[in-house]
Amino acid sequence: MQTLKEVQKVKKTTLTSAFKSVGGEMYALAEELYPLCRSITGAGTRDTLEILKHHIPLVMSKIPSGTKVFDWEVPKEWNIRDAYVLDPLGQKIIDFKKSNLHVVNYSIPVHKKMSLQELRRHIYTLPEYPDWIPYRTTYYKEDWGICMTHKQFQGLNEGTYEVHIDSSLESGYLTYGELLIEGEQKEEVLISTHICHPSLCNDNLSGISMATFLAKHLMGKKNRYSYRFLFIPGTIGAITWLSINEQKTGGVRHGLIAALLGDTGPFTYKKSRRGDAEIDQVVQYVLERNDKRNKVIDFVPYGYDERQFCSPGFNMPVGCLTRTPYGEYPEYHTSADNLTFISADSLEGSLKIYLKIITVLEANRKYINILPKCEPQLGKRGLYEAIGGNNDARKFQLALLWVLNMSDGEHTLLDIARKSVIDFETLMEAAFQLEKKKLIKGRREKGDQ
Amino acid sequence: MQTLKEVQKVKKTTLTSAFKSVGGEMYALAEELYPLCRSITGAGTRDTLEILKHHIPLVMSKIPSGTKVFDWEVPKEWNIRDAYVLDPLGQKIIDFKKSNLHVVNYSIPVHKKMSLQELRRHIYTLPEYPDWIPYRTTYYKEDWGICMTHKQFQGLNEGTYEVHIDSSLESGYLTYGELLIEGEQKEEVLISTHICHPSLCNDNLSGISMATFLAKHLMGKKNRYSYRFLFIPGTIGAITWLSINEQKTGGVRHGLIAALLGDTGPFTYKKSRRGDAEIDQVVQYVLERNDKRNKVIDFVPYGYDERQFCSPGFNMPVGCLTRTPYGEYPEYHTSADNLTFISADSLEGSLKIYLKIITVLEANRKYINILPKCEPQLGKRGLYEAIGGNNDARKFQLALLWVLNMSDGEHTLLDIARKSVIDFETLMEAAFQLEKKKLIKGRREKGDQ
Amino acid sequence: MQTLKEVQKVKKTTLTSAFKSVGGEMYALAEELYPLCRSITGAGTRDTLEILKHHIPLVMSKIPSGTKVFDWEVPKEWNIRDAYVLDPLGQKIIDFKKSNLHVVNYSIPVHKKMSLQELRRHIYTLPEYPDWIPYRTTYYKEDWGICMTHKQFQGLNEGTYEVHIDSSLESGYLTYGELLIEGEQKEEVLISTHICHPSLCNDNLSGISMATFLAKHLMGKKNRYSYRFLFIPGTIGAITWLSINEQKTGGVRHGLIAALLGDTGPFTYKKSRRGDAEIDQVVQYVLERNDKRNKVIDFVPYGYDERQFCSPGFNMPVGCLTRTPYGEYPEYHTSADNLTFISADSLEGSLKIYLKIITVLEANRKYINILPKCEPQLGKRGLYEAIGGNNDARKFQLALLWVLNMSDGEHTLLDIARKSVIDFETLMEAAFQLEKKKLIKGRREKGDQ
Repeated sequence: MQTLKEVQKVKKTTLTSAFKSVGGEMYALAEELYPLCRSITGAGTRDTLEILKHHIPLVMSKIPSGTKVFDWEVPKEWNIRDAYVLDPLGQKIIDFKKSNLHVVNYSIPVHKKMSLQELRRHIYTLPEYPDWIPYRTTYYKEDWGICMTHKQFQGLNEGTYEVHIDSSLESGYLTYGELLIEGEQKEEVLISTHICHPSLCNDNLSGISMATFLAKHLMGKKNRYSYRFLFIPGTIGAITWLSINEQKTGGVRHGLIAALLGDTGPFTYKKSRRGDAEIDQVVQYVLERNDKRNKVIDFVPYGYDERQFCSPGFNMPVGCLTRTPYGEYPEYHTSADNLTFISADSLEGSLKIYLKIITVLEANRKYINILPKCEPQLGKRGLYEAIGGNNDARKFQLALLWVLNMSDGEHTLLDIARKSVIDFETLMEAAFQLEKKKLIKGRREKGDQ
Repeated sequence: MQTLKEVQKVKKTTLTSAFKSVGGEMYALAEELYPLCRSITGAGTRDTLEILKHHIPLVMSKIPSGTKVFDWEVPKEWNIRDAYVLDPLGQKIIDFKKSNLHVVNYSIPVHKKMSLQELRRHIYTLPEYPDWIPYRTTYYKEDWGICMTHKQFQGLNEGTYEVHIDSSLESGYLTYGELLIEGEQKEEVLISTHICHPSLCNDNLSGISMATFLAKHLMGKKNRYSYRFLFIPGTIGAITWLSINEQKTGGVRHGLIAALLGDTGPFTYKKSRRGDAEIDQVVQYVLERNDKRNKVIDFVPYGYDERQFCSPGFNMPVGCLTRTPYGEYPEYHTSADNLTFISADSLEGSLKIYLKIITVLEANRKYINILPKCEPQLGKRGLYEAIGGNNDARKFQLALLWVLNMSDGEHTLLDIARKSVIDFETLMEAAFQLEKKKLIKGRREKGDQ
Repeated sequence: MQTLKEVQKVKKTTLTSAFKSVGGEMYALAEELYPLCRSITGAGTRDTLEILKHHIPLVMSKIPSGTKVFDWEVPKEWNIRDAYVLDPLGQKIIDFKKSNLHVVNYSIPVHKKMSLQELRRHIYTLPEYPDWIPYRTTYYKEDWGICMTHKQFQGLNEGTYEVHIDSSLESGYLTYGELLIEGEQKEEVLISTHICHPSLCNDNLSGISMATFLAKHLMGKKNRYSYRFLFIPGTIGAITWLSINEQKTGGVRHGLIAALLGDTGPFTYKKSRRGDAEIDQVVQYVLERNDKRNKVIDFVPYGYDERQFCSPGFNMPVGCLTRTPYGEYPEYHTSADNLTFISADSLEGSLKIYLKIITVLEANRKYINILPKCEPQLGKRGLYEAIGGNNDARKFQLALLWVLNMSDGEHTLLDIARKSVIDFETLMEAAFQLEKKKLIKGRREKGDQ
C-alpha cells in the first residue's frame, strides 16, 4: 500500500503544480499522432507505437496473419501509400494526402476508370452533416470505397472518373504494444486502449494519450498493484491478446477501457458485466464526488473492448470509462472529430480522474481489528489527545472509530466510506494511523504476496 | 421448444384471423352451461363436465363421499330437482326453475309450512342491491335457506308460507375432470379452474370456458411442456386432487388458477407464494406490456385454489390470473353475474393473454454460449451481413450480442429481456438463429427429457 | 410464551389503570437520586445502587482498581467530599454543595491560591448558554477543573483566588449493579443503562429509573426470556462487564441500551451493528405504530455502550433506544438537564414503549404448521363458525389463514405482520388459538429449553 505521505504527494504535487503543463503535453502527443493512417494492422499503427516508445518502454508483439485467435483469425496486413480520384476533367477531387478518411479503411487496391453511376456505389457521405467526411471500414469483406462530404458529392457531374487506391492487403502482422509496471503485488490493473483509428482525435488519440501519460506517471511510483497497459487494435486486437494471454486473465483484479477522453463532456462509466466488481464501486464513488453530471450505466454487450474482456467465458472485472459515450455526439466517426474537438484541459482532467481512481483502488483494503473486543483505549496511544477539539479533529476521531468497528475483514475502506459518509481520504489516514499503532492489519487476500 | 415459425404462426394466424370467432364460441359455451345448477358435487357438475367433453377429451374422476382427503373428507353428494315457496295465498313466489340461486346451495330437503317469522330466519337478501339475488352455500353445516331480492323480501306479508325443497344429500361422489396434454417434456404446466358455482357467469363460467378453449388450442400443437387441466370444485376439489395426486405435484413447474375472465376489467395477477417463481416473472412481463392498468399483487392466503396449491406443505409455483379480482365488483356472487356481465370480447382477450404467457413460458430458457471466450465472428456466419443497416436490423444485432453475452447458463431469455430492454420476441428470434448456427445451446434443466 | 390472557392483562390492567401513578413513582426515584455526585467509581455511584435496591434485588459487583479489562484497566476510585472557590474578597463564589457539576468529574485534590490568569486555564463555561454550567470529566488524565456559568465567568475580577477541591483518587473499586430475572428460557434480553453521571436528569436518571421500573414489572411475571439488567458506569463499566462475563455474551439474544428517556421528544432507535437483528425489527415495528415522529437510524460506532457491545469482536444484537438522541438538545451535558427537563409522563411513556417491545419480543416466534398440506378444516374446530360475519371476525379469520400459511418454520409472527398488514396482536391471538387446536407448534430454536 502507498503510505499516506505518498498519496498526499500525488494529490498535492502531481495533481496540481506538476500538472500545470501535463494537459499540454498530452495534447501535443495527440497532435503528433494525428496525421498517421492507423488501422487494425499496418505501418500507421506500428509508427504510432514507435512514437509512444519515446514516452514509455512499450513491448511490441507481432502476430502473423492467419493466426487462429478463438473464433477469428488475424487478417491480412493492410497498407496504403496514396489514393486519389480524378474527375471527368482530370482534376484531383479526392486526395488521401489531405485526409486519410477519404479512403474506406482496408480498401483493396483500385486503379480504374468508371462512370459516375458506378463510382456512386462506392461513395459514402453524411447527408445530415454535409461538410463532414465519414469514417468507414471494410475489415472483413474485401471491398473498397471513397468517403467524402455530402456537399462535394452533390456537386459531382456525369462523366468518367478515375479511381486510384495504392493500397496492399497481404500476409503480414497484427501489431500491438504492451507495458507491465510491476508493483508490490502480482495482481494487475489492466488499462486497455484501442489504436486502430486513423485521423480521429477523441476516438481514440485521447485514449492513447491518456493511457501513455498515466503509465508514465505510475512508472515513477511504488505501486501496490502491477499495472498492465495494452495499446491494441479494437476487437481483433483484444481477441488476439486474450487468445495468446489466456492464462494471464486470472491475475487481472481490476480493469478499465480508456477511450473518448478529450471532449468537454462529463464522464460516463459503463460497469463491468459483473456489475458490482470493486472497480465498479470505486469508479462510481470517484465520479459521484467529482461532478454531479457524471453518469454510471450498466453493462451492455456492445461498445469497446469490454465486449471481449466481459464475454461470458472471461467475465473479467473490466469497465469502460469515457467522457461522452460513443455515438452520443455527432462528430463521432467523422472528420469533425479532429484536433479542435479535443483540448488539453479535457485530457488533463481525464488523467486526473484515472489517477484518483487508482489512488482509491490502491488504498482500498479490508482490515482486521487486532483488538476487536470493545474499543481499544485510543487516549493512551495519543490518538485521542493528539486531536484537540475542532471539527476536523472530531471527524478524524469518528473515522478512527468507524475503521475500528468495521475492520472485521469483511468491509473495505470504501464500504466504510459509504456507511459512515466520511470521505475516503480521511478514512485512509485513519487506517494508516491505526495500522501504525498496531490496532488493525490489512487482510490477506487471495493473490496478495 | 417451439420453432419461431410455429410461434409466429400462433401469433399471426391463430391470434388474429382464426380468433375472429373464438370469443363467440367461448361465449356460446358459457351460455350453454349457464342454466345448470352446479355445486361441489351432484348432477349439475357432472353434466357440466359432459358438455365440456364435446370440446376436449376430459377424463372424469369420481371420489366417493367419506373419502379422507388430508384434514377433510369428501362430503355427501347434493342433488336438487325443484324448489319453490308458496305465499299465504298459495302463490308461487319463489321458483327454483327461474333461478337456481334462490336455494342456498347444499340445502337439505324441506317440505314444511311455517310462519313468516320462521321463514325469515332462512331468507338471505342484499339490502344494498335490492334487485339482485345473493348466492349462498352451506356445504359443511346441514341447513337450508332461500335467497331472494331485497325488494321481494320487503313485500312479504304475514301469514303461513309453504317451503318445498326437493333436494337430496346422500352418499355419492365428488366428480372432477382432468386433461393431460403431453409435451416434449414431462414437466407440467397446471391450469386449474373451479366448476362449483351454479348460474353465475364471471365466477366461473368464464374460467371454465377459457380453460376449455386454451386446452383445445394446445392439443393442436407440439408443446415443450406437458399441460394438465383441472376442472374441479373449489377448495374440496383442489384438496381432493392434491390428496390423490400428491406424487404428481413435484412435476408441476408452472401453474395458474384461471377464474373471473369474462368481465371488462384489466387483468390482476396474484403471485404464487414463492413470489419470484418463473411463472410470476413471466406473467408480470406479459401483463406489463399488455396494458398499463393490469396489476400484479403479492400472494395472500385467501382467494381461489391457489390457497391449497400454495399451502406450506406444497408451496407450488401457482399464481392466479383473473380480470377484476373476486369481491372487487358488486355483481360478485349475485344474480347480476349473469350472461350480460360477460362478453365474447373479454373472454377472447383472456384467452389471448393466457396464450401469450404460454408462448413466453415455452420459449423461456437458459442458454449456454458454446464459444464463450470473446465474441464469435458473426459476419462469417451471415448474422452480420444479412442484416443490413436499418433500425430493426440494428436491434436484432444487439439482441444477438445480448443473448451471446448472457448465455452462461444462469440467465433466462426473460432475464435478458429485462436487462436489455429488448422485447422477448426479438430475443427468441436471436436465440433461434444462434442455436441454428450452433453458437448457443439450451441448458439442460432438472426435469428436461 | 405468555398466554394471550396474560398479555391482555398487561395491556389493559398494567398499562392503563395500574400505571396511573407509575410515572410519578419513576419521577420520584429520579428526584431521590438527583443530588448524588455519581462518577464512574466512588461513593455516589454506590449510594445510587443502594437506593435502587429498595426497588429491585440488585447484585453489586466490586472490581478492584488496576484490574485489566481488555485494552483498558479499572481506574482509581474517585471520591469528593466538598469543593469551593474563594474570590479575592474571600467570598465563596463556587460551591460544590450547590451543584456538583461545578467540579470537573475526577478532579484531583487541590488546595491552592492562584491568580485569575492561572485559574482561567481550569475554568469551563458555555458561552452560547451563559446561564448554564457545563458538565466535564477528566477520567483518564490527572487534572482538575471548575465549571461555571459564562455569566459568572465574565464577572470575575483580577486578584488572587483560592481553590479547594477535597477529593481523593486512590486505589479502590469500580462498582456496578446487576439483576437477572430468570425466565422459561435461559436466553437473555439485556437491558443496560449507565449510572456515571452526577446531577443530570435526562442523561441518565431517566434511564436508571426506567430500567428499575421495567425490572420491577418483569419480576412479577412469568417470562419466556430471562432478563438481565445492568446498571453500569459508561464505557469502562461496559468494558469491565464484558471482560468478566465474556462467556455470557453468547446467551444474549436481544439487547437494548436505555438512556435519555425523560424528555418530551419522540423516540429514536439506533439499530444494532447487525442492522437486521430481531431486536431491530421489533423496535422498528413498535415505534412505527406508536408515533410517526419516531425515528430509526443505522448503527454508528459512537454514542453509549452499544459501542462496546457492538464492537466487532462481540457484534451483539444490542441497539439503543432513547428519546431525543444525545447531543441533539442544548441542555445535554449541562446544568439545564435538571428535574424540570424531565417529566413523569415522559418517563411513563418510555416504560410503556419498552413494555410493548417486550410483549412483541416474547410472542415473536416461528411456528410450524402441523397439517401443512392444504388448509386444515377450521369449521370443524370451531374456528370458522365462532367468528360470525363482522369486520373483526373477518380480520381474525384472515389472521388464522396467514399464520397457517406462513408457519413453515421460517417466518416469525412479525414477518407475518409485515406481509399481511394485520396487526401483531391479532396474529398473536390467532397463533394462540391455532396452537391450542394443535394446528401449529412453536419451532424449537437454538437456545430454547
